[in-house]
Formats: sequence, C-alpha cells, structure tokens
Amino acid sequence: MTLHLHCFGESGNAYKAALTLTLCGIDWEPVFVDFFHGATRTPEFRALNVMGEVPVLVGDDVKLTQSGTIQLWAAERTGRLLGPSRAEALRWLLFDNHKVSSQAGALRFHMNFLAPEKRSPQVMDWLSGRLRAALQSMEAQLGQTPWLAGEEVTIGDIACCGYLYYPEPFGFDRAEWPAIDAWLDRISALPGWRHPYDMMPGRPSDRATIS
Amino acid sequence: MTLHLHCFGESGNAYKAALTLTLCGIDWEPVFVDFFHGATRTPEFRALNVMGEVPVLVGDDVKLTQSGTIQLWAAERTGRLLGPSRAEALRWLLFDNHKVSSQAGALRFHMNFLAPEKRSPQVMDWLSGRLRAALQSMEAQLGQTPWLAGEEVTIGDIACCGYLYYPEPFGFDRAEWPAIDAWLDRISALPGWRHPYDMMPGRPSDRATIS
Repeated sequence: MTLHLHCFGESGNAYKAALTLTLCGIDWEPVFVDFFHGATRTPEFRALNVMGEVPVLVGDDVKLTQSGTIQLWAAERTGRLLGPSRAEALRWLLFDNHKVSSQAGALRFHMNFLAPEKRSPQVMDWLSGRLRAALQSMEAQLGQTPWLAGEEVTIGDIACCGYLYYPEPFGFDRAEWPAIDAWLDRISALPGWRHPYDMMPGRPSDRATIS
Repeated sequence: MTLHLHCFGESGNAYKAALTLTLCGIDWEPVFVDFFHGATRTPEFRALNVMGEVPVLVGDDVKLTQSGTIQLWAAERTGRLLGPSRAEALRWLLFDNHKVSSQAGALRFHMNFLAPEKRSPQVMDWLSGRLRAALQSMEAQLGQTPWLAGEEVTIGDIACCGYLYYPEPFGFDRAEWPAIDAWLDRISALPGWRHPYDMMPGRPSDRATIS
C-alpha cells in the first residue's frame, strides 16, 4: 500500500503531517495540490475534503484529513512521538491549531502571498499580536522543559513548529526567542528531518503572488 | 472525586468542555475564572496552565487543558460522542479549533467585549470572511449528513457549536445557514443540553466592556 499525502510546500499544516509520517518511519508519497491556482476550491477536491484544505492522507484503507488527525494516527500506529502522556502531547497539538498556526499561517500568507493591494496593516498588526502571545507561552514552557510536553519529543512539537522553519517574513525572528530557537535546532537535528521545501513539492519561487 | 472545570460563561472553548462532560454523564463543578479582570494573566493561573487559557479540568488524578483534550478524555472514558470513527470526530474537532472557534471567538470578542475605540473594522471584516468560509464547509457537510461526522453526534459537533449559541452579535445569523440552524436545534434537543450562560458562571450583563 502506498500512502499519498495531498500537499504543497508552502503549507505548514501539510508539513506537520509530512514530517510526522517521516519521523514515524511511515513511507508516503506527495500528491501536489496547486493551491495557488485554486485547486482546493474545485468540486473534485471538495469531494475529497469538504473543508477544502490540505493535508489529506489517502491509502487503501484510510482517508484522513486535518493535520492533527494524521499526526495522531501515525503516532498511535507506530508508538512514536506520543511521549509518556498522550494528553500532554495533544494539548500542545491543539494549542498549535488554535493559537499558533492559525495566526502564523494567516500572517505569512498576508505578508507574502496576497497581492500587496489587498494587504491590511490592521489585520497584520492584529495577527502579529496574537502570534506573539502564543509564542510567549511556548517560550515559557521551553524555558522549563526541552520539549513542549516535557522530556520527550511529541506530535505537539511537530505541530507547533509547522510554520516556524519557513524563510518568508511573518514577524518571527528566532533570535528574539532563545528557548524556541534552541528547540527548533533540536527538532531539525532529529534523524529524517527535512525542511518543508525539501519534503513537499511547490515553493514561492515557482510562481508570482496571488492576484 | 470531584472534577473542577476552570471556566467562565463567555468562553465558548470552556463551553465545549462543559457540554461534553455533561453529555457524557460526568459530574463536574465550575470554578469561576475572572478573565475580564485579568485572572488568566496572573502567575497563579499561569502555573496551572502556561497557555493562560480556560478550560482547565482538575481532579484527583487528572489535570487537562485545551477543550479538545478534555473532550476526547471524556468521550473515551465513557464511550460516548465518538461515533463509529474517532478520526472523523477528531477531524471536525480540529477543524473547529483551527477554523471555526478561532475566528468566531475572536470576532465576538472584538465586536462585543473590546472597548469600542480599540475595535478595527479591517480586523472584523477579515475575521468575518474567514468565519463565513468555515461555516460554508459546515453547511455543505450538514446538507449531506445530520451530524458533522456522519450519522451520529460526536465531540466534533460539540466543538463546532461552541460559539454558535451565544446571543452577542458576531455576524452569525442562523437564518442564513439552514443546515447549521437545524443541526443546532438537534444539539440543543440532546438530553442534558444547556445554554453556556446556564452552565457556567459569568455573563456580559455582570460587567462593563474591557477598557
């Protein structure tokens, strides 16, 4: 059985699934979704996922959407990345979805991929403030423990880092956040780690901004 | 053992936990968190939850934060609200955290609880557009199945409805969304259902806007 992950390089949400699968030792192949040319808005894609989002993982006996669902599936299937308490791992995965990636993904999109005339300084300021508040919680935790859920790396870490390796500016400067910076180094030192643009097809240099 | 849920009435995130516990038949008592007077920003609260958020569920042998963690714990403990596929239930729970409550909660806060001079029309427009996109996905699914994950009510439904019973305006009018409207009626007809303001202490009429 080949597992196919519908994804594109710019998606931090897809990256969380891709990196989790890889770190769990599960083989997968990417299926490129041309998000920037409307692929997630087609009836065909909506039939695959009514939410109109990547990632979607498809295999002979499985179809999963939402990065967190795929992350938990991979972790439970292999017994990896769960740590001693699944609840602690899930807590950080959910915090990511609600407070970290929600803001970081939207802010990065706004600052880099949206046509300049459609950008709103007020929206960017607001998202930036919300993102900083979330990063402060992560920085506080990582000042106490090496990984978000404690002494072991979990799917919570792989969720929260989803947008933090991207080079496009979104107001996140690792130098400002020493505990997060060291933690990102620990994650990228894990065997099998790769950068999102080296793991999934599609990157900004392939195209122009959205009009 | 008495389970204490740290919460306040205006929090749709706390409501998801409160309603799930109740529908699962688990006894709990509320501990009022005076969010609007800074209670979640105190060192004492941060020691309880570094994220500075409700809900927090505390019992003799358990401390859980993030509504989704509490929802999954309650569902797995009792075998209720999981439906035939935990992955399908979780998928909607995660969609809520990422796309529904993130926008609905922030927009409702902005439109009702933030001091008028701090409100930004641009931010409200942006959040409103994002919320409508998420509601469209829910409406599409609920046009096909009675519950988000299919034929049975799950924690995914109890997550996605978290902010949708509140009376304060945030651009959500049930009459515009017939499938969501009928689904909210199905949820509120479940034995044990109560409105957030009847389930948790604290409501807007108790105080003035934030300054």
